[in-house]
Amino acid sequence: MSDRVAIIGVGMCKFGELWEQSLRDITLEAGMYAIFDSGVRGADIDGVVIGNMSAGRFTGQEHLGAQAADMGGLGDMPAYSVEAACASGGAAVRHAYMAIKSGEHDLMLVLGNEKMSDVNQSEAMNTISVAADWEYEGMFGATFPALYAMMARRHMKEYGTTEEQLALPTVKNHANAEHNPWAQFQRAVPLGVVMKSGLIADPLRVLHSAPVTDGAAGLVVCREDLAKKYSDTPVYIEASEQRGDTLALHDRKSITRMDAVIYSTKSALKEANLKVEDIDVFELHDSFSIGEIILTEDVGIAKKGEGGKALEEGITEIGGKFPVNTGGGLKARGHPVGATGVAQIVELALQLRGDAEKRQVDGAEKGLAVNIGGTGATSIVHIIGR
Amino acid sequence: MSDRVAIIGVGMCKFGELWEQSLRDITLEAGMYAIFDSGVRGADIDGVVIGNMSAGRFTGQEHLGAQAADMGGLGDMPAYSVEAACASGGAAVRHAYMAIKSGEHDLMLVLGNEKMSDVNQSEAMNTISVAADWEYEGMFGATFPALYAMMARRHMKEYGTTEEQLALPTVKNHANAEHNPWAQFQRAVPLGVVMKSGLIADPLRVLHSAPVTDGAAGLVVCREDLAKKYSDTPVYIEASEQRGDTLALHDRKSITRMDAVIYSTKSALKEANLKVEDIDVFELHDSFSIGEIILTEDVGIAKKGEGGKALEEGITEIGGKFPVNTGGGLKARGHPVGATGVAQIVELALQLRGDAEKRQVDGAEKGLAVNIGGTGATSIVHIIGR
Repeated sequence: MSDRVAIIGVGMCKFGELWEQSLRDITLEAGMYAIFDSGVRGADIDGVVIGNMSAGRFTGQEHLGAQAADMGGLGDMPAYSVEAACASGGAAVRHAYMAIKSGEHDLMLVLGNEKMSDVNQSEAMNTISVAADWEYEGMFGATFPALYAMMARRHMKEYGTTEEQLALPTVKNHANAEHNPWAQFQRAVPLGVVMKSGLIADPLRVLHSAPVTDGAAGLVVCREDLAKKYSDTPVYIEASEQRGDTLALHDRKSITRMDAVIYSTKSALKEANLKVEDIDVFELHDSFSIGEIILTEDVGIAKKGEGGKALEEGITEIGGKFPVNTGGGLKARGHPVGATGVAQIVELALQLRGDAEKRQVDGAEKGLAVNIGGTGATSIVHIIGR
Repeated sequence: MSDRVAIIGVGMCKFGELWEQSLRDITLEAGMYAIFDSGVRGADIDGVVIGNMSAGRFTGQEHLGAQAADMGGLGDMPAYSVEAACASGGAAVRHAYMAIKSGEHDLMLVLGNEKMSDVNQSEAMNTISVAADWEYEGMFGATFPALYAMMARRHMKEYGTTEEQLALPTVKNHANAEHNPWAQFQRAVPLGVVMKSGLIADPLRVLHSAPVTDGAAGLVVCREDLAKKYSDTPVYIEASEQRGDTLALHDRKSITRMDAVIYSTKSALKEANLKVEDIDVFELHDSFSIGEIILTEDVGIAKKGEGGKALEEGITEIGGKFPVNTGGGLKARGHPVGATGVAQIVELALQLRGDAEKRQVDGAEKGLAVNIGGTGATSIVHIIGR
């Protein structure tokens, strides 16, 4: 048990189109919230790690670790920046996990951030393509919606997944986000509206797709033996696993599953000595609704091809057997790319602490997050327990 | 001693303006070289980490960890990307050091890369500004040459550093690079030519400045107890330390020293139980010649203000008491930003193995590298020993 890393503070800014705040502002807000939540002083922190995908393109700033430590007044401590496309936030959590386990750090601030709305939409779409294979995919017009659309079309053909099922993650996640004060879209969306929203890459519609979002999220993490000094309700990282796959979608054996998710989840469950049935709450990367359907299958909630059916049966709703994306997921909480993996852990920690208010899963003790980079070239899985 | 991490393979591509190779090509070349040098098989490697500053802007590609693992045919292993501006390479080395010490990895491929020449020069200069504070410096025209020029001018005023002394790092580093087959500029440059080269930001001239370069470098690193299985000449990371400072130059107490370098060097020497006199060969980050002068002082080779004098006296030449930048430094080896910190360790490893040929420092047993991000907002120091 001494191998675990504790989470003693969580924070976020409200996600959205934050025109009046800079990347620096929102990062400071989320980080300070996590620090206040933890009760630590700045001087207790001995390192910062930040996950971000593409601030160099979105805002003209790299070297974000140094910027975050500087703006937070955190002195001369080591500050790290990590990137794994849409899994950059999960990569930051994993970096801190390794840094603490290595003995190089005791108590760290973990941040994730992205400021996406300050560029025009076509530049945002090009920038998001940095996460896939630009030379072999993006350059030829295979943007993210196009790639996920092919995955969706193939899933429909192989398993009979329906257009209605494709819309269900959106309906569920918006319903959940109604009760998340940090979510970008705090409102329900009826099935009919989703199914009639504009096509962006057949069969994917705009309301199947995570939005362009500004946001930041933060965690304070520390060695397990220090946790009780600061927090009455620490939760623990019981497993951290990462796997990869080919960068380009066309090189995969199958485009209706993500092998990196399958193997990283299996390894994480083994590391935590748990079965999927033991997990009370899930965060599954739903950048497009087909992603949530595939991940529902790949983590073992549903059999292969039955992710859509699981949604129809309501087993991934709050109150169901395997609640997924209780905070609204990427679709409704918003998807500021680098922040998402950290925000997933924030949501799980709140659930495990019993602090999730109207979206609380009763008695949640174990949570699992899957954070995806690209179309599944990176999968980072964390299991959190109390 | 079980705390050390071994370096069992090193490799690079020849640095330069590599118009006919993509970022992918040069990274593969450097990585394969390091793997062949180490004698490991791909299947022995359990993780990849890559340091890069701004491929998103330079080439339209992020998610470089996944790309490197994919192109190397390295399977589904975890692949990490880290960034710390011009210290991104050093950050990759430090990431691997922590990942191995944490027990999460046993044997890793460490890469650093940057492809800078495929954009026009003004875009390259803007992109390099992502390493400083874009909103408070770059946006107002305070590009890197301008910032270092202010450091140089102040150093001349406070300590009497001369224009001739400012030119000496270039003369020495070019002379060293004559004997480095991987260097971008394998030729000597006379003092008079440096001193008459074009002014770019008074008092800095073009030949005081590291060039725009394409390049990649690689290391194979592993747990100390595995090293002898693969290599007869392993060298070891005896210390890895990192410190930070304010991102913007104007927030510093002094602009003629770099506190992050002073403290990270002190900590590293303490960690390795060494004094600066015990170090046989140094790699000091000379993105501008004034940088090498300041670092010569900050690591303790020369007293404060006497870095220029140390150069005049030849003590930092090969054959001097404290040889600095034996492979040509950033100025003459070239400075593909994310590759530089890895290339520094490649040079030290070659020196300690006795493989540095005509630039060999006789009997070198300990080496120290300082890799800087921005104008000193990040300093990463590694001490290597055999």
